[in-house]
Amino acid sequence: MTEYVLPTHANALGTIFGGQVLAWIDLCAAICAQRHTGRTVITAGIDDLSFDRSILVGQVVRLRAQVTATFRTSLEILVTVHGEDATRGDVWPTVTAFVTFVAVDASMRPAQVPPLLVESPEERALAEAAAERRQRRLARRGRPERSA
Amino acid sequence: MTEYVLPTHANALGTIFGGQVLAWIDLCAAICAQRHTGRTVITAGIDDLSFDRSILVGQVVRLRAQVTATFRTSLEILVTVHGEDATRGDVWPTVTAFVTFVAVDASMRPAQVPPLLVESPEERALAEAAAERRQRRLARRGRPERSA
Amino acid sequence: MTEYVLPTHANALGTIFGGQVLAWIDLCAAICAQRHTGRTVITAGIDDLSFDRSILVGQVVRLRAQVTATFRTSLEILVTVHGEDATRGDVWPTVTAFVTFVAVDASMRPAQVPPLLVESPEERALAEAAAERRQRRLARRGRPERSA
Amino acid sequence: MTEYVLPTHANALGTIFGGQVLAWIDLCAAICAQRHTGRTVITAGIDDLSFDRSILVGQVVRLRAQVTATFRTSLEILVTVHGEDATRGDVWPTVTAFVTFVAVDASMRPAQVPPLLVESPEERALAEAAAERRQRRLARRGRPERSA
Amino acid sequence: MTEYVLPTHANALGTIFGGQVLAWIDLCAAICAQRHTGRTVITAGIDDLSFDRSILVGQVVRLRAQVTATFRTSLEILVTVHGEDATRGDVWPTVTAFVTFVAVDASMRPAQVPPLLVESPEERALAEAAAERRQRRLARRGRPERSA
Amino acid sequence: MTEYVLPTHANALGTIFGGQVLAWIDLCAAICAQRHTGRTVITAGIDDLSFDRSILVGQVVRLRAQVTATFRTSLEILVTVHGEDATRGDVWPTVTAFVTFVAVDASMRPAQVPPLLVESPEERALAEAAAERRQRRLARRGRPERSA
Repeated sequence: MTEYVLPTHANALGTIFGGQVLAWIDLCAAICAQRHTGRTVITAGIDDLSFDRSILVGQVVRLRAQVTATFRTSLEILVTVHGEDATRGDVWPTVTAFVTFVAVDASMRPAQVPPLLVESPEERALAEAAAERRQRRLARRGRPERSA
Repeated sequence: MTEYVLPTHANALGTIFGGQVLAWIDLCAAICAQRHTGRTVITAGIDDLSFDRSILVGQVVRLRAQVTATFRTSLEILVTVHGEDATRGDVWPTVTAFVTFVAVDASMRPAQVPPLLVESPEERALAEAAAERRQRRLARRGRPERSA
Repeated sequence: MTEYVLPTHANALGTIFGGQVLAWIDLCAAICAQRHTGRTVITAGIDDLSFDRSILVGQVVRLRAQVTATFRTSLEILVTVHGEDATRGDVWPTVTAFVTFVAVDASMRPAQVPPLLVESPEERALAEAAAERRQRRLARRGRPERSA
Repeated sequence: MTEYVLPTHANALGTIFGGQVLAWIDLCAAICAQRHTGRTVITAGIDDLSFDRSILVGQVVRLRAQVTATFRTSLEILVTVHGEDATRGDVWPTVTAFVTFVAVDASMRPAQVPPLLVESPEERALAEAAAERRQRRLARRGRPERSA
Repeated sequence: MTEYVLPTHANALGTIFGGQVLAWIDLCAAICAQRHTGRTVITAGIDDLSFDRSILVGQVVRLRAQVTATFRTSLEILVTVHGEDATRGDVWPTVTAFVTFVAVDASMRPAQVPPLLVESPEERALAEAAAERRQRRLARRGRPERSA
Repeated sequence: MTEYVLPTHANALGTIFGGQVLAWIDLCAAICAQRHTGRTVITAGIDDLSFDRSILVGQVVRLRAQVTATFRTSLEILVTVHGEDATRGDVWPTVTAFVTFVAVDASMRPAQVPPLLVESPEERALAEAAAERRQRRLARRGRPERSA
């Protein structure tokens, strides 16, 4: 997924508005999750993320999504975002995010997700670390700030 | 901050598109951060978050932001999002998020952030837990998936 | 209701486009009217209004709505709009507007509106002046320019 | 000015969102005011207006603006809005509004407005009634609800 | 159809984003096609077009559409686009486009289009040249780049 | 470039609004043209195009752009658009378009475009046919309908 940053996406500083990047991350991950599951998916959560260098109006946002782990009725997608200055041929990392989705059937009930076929060593490392990330997510549901 | 969910904010299911909620969280937190710092702020990151019940077209999104901790040139904002059916008088929690911002001066260099005056016991608990959240954020910068 | 002014809301001067303020006034009033009536509401009209100081990109728009009078199947909402420079801590009045709505049932027929409980002296003054405003509205329906 | 009502302009009922109509009225009037004055114009206010029949997604909004009166540094524009079902050839009145603008020079100071050449009897009637509308506007600035 | 160019319509150069002009051409032509056919219409194609002088934020886009030829279940609309600087009273041609539409009935099947009544010599010339344009369109369907 | 079709992109039929597809074609081609030229580019024109099967809300739009020919200060980009139903794994051609751009320098004067390195037989065929397409474009500038 590639997006051109227009003034309509900018904040008052002429750089891309952070919320717009988050919106594109969600869309890009959702398409990837739909392709893998063959189902409607609902955003369940996003892991913590941090922004590196910003992106200006007139530059390009590049998003790449891949399935990194599947669970019974949910799956985890890694979205990697780069900024690009298409006229200078310059590319830089902006943010990476793990987005989790629940797959649902026509009556909006959780539905089974096909398992992920892990092939490269890089994919294997991501999938293995997914168990730990899932623990963090489950633990977070019990954190005190949730009741705030 | 209160928003009415129009078709322009919806996904294909007639519920609010998750990316739109993220965009509003970022804006709501940014206003709160600007008020506290008196400066331009740049989104540095968002802690992991998970969505509870969804919000439909014609319903209302309520966002409330508060400063929970300040650091030397950055600060942490907690945004609590509720859905509301204004015609039924029904309100439900949707998501909470910690957003961190860096304050910058006119030349876009990090600038000092005024300390937070903690008053209620609830505020104190949030501020004390902030140190642990900050550790998690710094640790995450070293995680292997960052290089993906 | 609080909105951050992004370039997407601006006119060619870098100030907020007046029509955008009107759109937010309508939304803010509609949420307030739905909460009071527990029903779908349809914008019936807006009383005359005038804009004071403008609001720039990067500043904040604050809207507050309150029910000022109820009639059999309609009600009147006062929306007060302020501009705010969140970094300077500066707030100024921008515009106030009375918006009237008709409450409708599921078949889109006018439905009864619960009476307003007037409590403070300020609320009482607003409600008492509502009769005169309603006369102006009904009179306006007979004005010659309506046929233009 | 003619606009096609897309889902992006609709409220949760599938009819046009009232605030969108107000935004188009402001734009249509502003173009008309710029043409007459040859200057940048700033929305000063809108007279009271009421909505008749609504307009659905897939239908058309037609707006027509004309200068009805000029003052020293401001002018009054009448905008007449009709709904149209282009497939049925059906047209109906939706709302009329008087919008006033201040003309400004390059330093944003009020600038003189060329007088209006009134030609038809209909134009003359509108211009003559403008004095009374202007009195109402000036009177309104002293109304108690303004301090609300 | 008349549109005011706001920052939300602009590219990074402060001129109108070409895709926005194309979107307005499609809408303007669709309204015209619906009026002629009294039916829902679906965009079938656009003939080649080229942009002349650009249009800046704060200027006005004027679009005029006319039916130039009708076929059994489709019709051809000519859209002429001008830029206008409303404060200077300056108008210039920007682009012209032939858009073709298929008329459909309630089950989305092609439906008959009423013939065009050609009156002025200019209309006759446009209608006569339409046969040649239609040949080009049909020929283009067999071009090798279509398989690209 | 991949886009998810949200209600905000749809027409009254729940299918994607044709003008939105044209807007994305223009953006996708512009990014490709900037990458090749290393310069700001301005849309000069679009060759005739025709839409095949439509795309629904909830489906995906896939756009792929490639440089097919370069001239002295301009270049030609082929954009191929497919619809995709991500849940069914279904992909279909929607439209192809040739977009031409002029490259400009910092003072907005036409600037030289680096030549295209043609490698595959398919690329060669496209480049060779470009001369004929360019003839059509130049011829079209003299067509009578241009004066309409």
